[in-house]
Amino acid sequence: MHTLDHYRTVFTAYLEAHAKVKKPQNLYRPIAYILGLGGKRLRPVLTLMGCDLFGGDHNHALPAAMAVEVFHNFSLVHDDIMDDAPLRRGQPTVHEKWNINTGILSGDAMLINAYQFLEGYKSPVFNQLLGLFSKTAMEVCEGQQYDIDFETRNDVTVAEYLTMIEYKTAVLIAAALKMGAIVAGAQKKDQDLIYEFGRNLGIAFQLQDDFLDAFGDPKTFGKQVGGDIIENKKTFLYLKALEQSVEADRKTLTGLFAHQAHDPASKIEAVKEIFKKSGAMEATDKEIEEYTQRAFDALDRITAEKADKKVFEDFGRNLMQRTF
Amino acid sequence: MHTLDHYRTVFTAYLEAHAKVKKPQNLYRPIAYILGLGGKRLRPVLTLMGCDLFGGDHNHALPAAMAVEVFHNFSLVHDDIMDDAPLRRGQPTVHEKWNINTGILSGDAMLINAYQFLEGYKSPVFNQLLGLFSKTAMEVCEGQQYDIDFETRNDVTVAEYLTMIEYKTAVLIAAALKMGAIVAGAQKKDQDLIYEFGRNLGIAFQLQDDFLDAFGDPKTFGKQVGGDIIENKKTFLYLKALEQSVEADRKTLTGLFAHQAHDPASKIEAVKEIFKKSGAMEATDKEIEEYTQRAFDALDRITAEKADKKVFEDFGRNLMQRTF
Repeated sequence: MHTLDHYRTVFTAYLEAHAKVKKPQNLYRPIAYILGLGGKRLRPVLTLMGCDLFGGDHNHALPAAMAVEVFHNFSLVHDDIMDDAPLRRGQPTVHEKWNINTGILSGDAMLINAYQFLEGYKSPVFNQLLGLFSKTAMEVCEGQQYDIDFETRNDVTVAEYLTMIEYKTAVLIAAALKMGAIVAGAQKKDQDLIYEFGRNLGIAFQLQDDFLDAFGDPKTFGKQVGGDIIENKKTFLYLKALEQSVEADRKTLTGLFAHQAHDPASKIEAVKEIFKKSGAMEATDKEIEEYTQRAFDALDRITAEKADKKVFEDFGRNLMQRTF
Repeated sequence: MHTLDHYRTVFTAYLEAHAKVKKPQNLYRPIAYILGLGGKRLRPVLTLMGCDLFGGDHNHALPAAMAVEVFHNFSLVHDDIMDDAPLRRGQPTVHEKWNINTGILSGDAMLINAYQFLEGYKSPVFNQLLGLFSKTAMEVCEGQQYDIDFETRNDVTVAEYLTMIEYKTAVLIAAALKMGAIVAGAQKKDQDLIYEFGRNLGIAFQLQDDFLDAFGDPKTFGKQVGGDIIENKKTFLYLKALEQSVEADRKTLTGLFAHQAHDPASKIEAVKEIFKKSGAMEATDKEIEEYTQRAFDALDRITAEKADKKVFEDFGRNLMQRTF
């Protein structure tokens, strides 16, 4: 195993060599733009790591890693249109910099291009990669649809919310790892365990994002603290608070989430108070801990060198150790 | 070989069995809706025919035919958003009946689902289908981009226009046929010839559509005669007329195409007059004849039963024999 920085450097070099602007430029320029905005390259790095863990050569996993990263960026471009988001990684989104039609069409081309990166693999690796990739891509779409549906629904359950974040966020992290394992020719059992590691870690990560939105340190949390509350987002904290609150608090909470606040600061305080009082804060913390533990349990059971698995454990701990 | 009606019936039954509405319904209902609007099912029928022509069993080509039809409908849903089209096959478009976000996301899911229909094929058929499918899908996106670019460009050449209609329309017809040939295990040479048959016929068909828009019989032409002229569309007729007109007519023509007409009927007459006088009408007619002939030449060279090839010839003649 190499360091995260090494995998990131290797991947970035591959991406830069493969994100060329062809004709028609109005189709390919936005693709190069969004792929060039950077980001942590978390998912493709996991594909390379997943390959090395099982004795593969991470260079062979580069096209699969690229498929994952191009797909991820496709989903960002289309989600940003749907969410009417002006910024992505501090820069104008594709539909803002160009227009909605360019965002739709460039996104479509990226989705197809992601599949093309898998074409060099041979059977049965090729078939396994394709099957997992399409299944995952479909789940990401379903997760996005649930997310949209939840905005206008008032009867979302905690279980439904967990399915939504699993599909929208966790399965791509899980699939990224498993694709690396497939390229390495890992045993089926180990492929499934690395997938479980990623899936549980992905859910834990998203739950922690919900938690930090309310209780994070403004200095270290990347986004605006209280942002989800201002936007009336039905997060795990909110749904859990509805489930566990006394009737009066439940009414207050749904009332606060029924419209935009005149005074966001006092709304944030009132909501956080109910999150604490209802036990939702504690329950969320416990849930994060449980999913993280499930991830590490799966990692434990993988047949691989202990020292190599340590890199994944460090990665997981690092990911989950953002300061509260 | 069977009759076109037989292939259409077999395909429709397969489609109806496979277009089930799953959860989340807001994602899958629009997919079932657009797939259920009908249409001639031209492309999937060609896949089944392409399979039978080379001694295959068209039932084995049904998933490939479905991939082609689902992809085609994906492109309709996204193109209709980009073109702001209210109607498709006389019914509300997906983004009109639901909304733009539903159109984007359902379209994305259809594109992924199209790939999933290919998963049952084994190597090397699987790899060949995937490679052709992605290449074609990418070209369709490029064709759509060229079409968008041409709207605001004043220096489009006849050659560029031909590339645009080849990518936007002809390659999917060609690929539909070739995918059937791949499933049947046809020789590479024959796969390429049936592709050429479809590609040339597709271009001829689109050029004829341009021609009939100006010179078609309102009784038999499905759309409004003169529609392209009213919309200032840079069709083959228009570009050829620009190329071949005397300076004064070229000025009149670009002037007429610079804005919306107050009096569409007289604009249509004036434009048609220049199309005739410049020789563009004749040149277009000749071009249609040439592409049709190239299609039939390719068909001639295919190694298959003469009687079976006759079905394709009849299909081509039928397609090209819409009354002027």
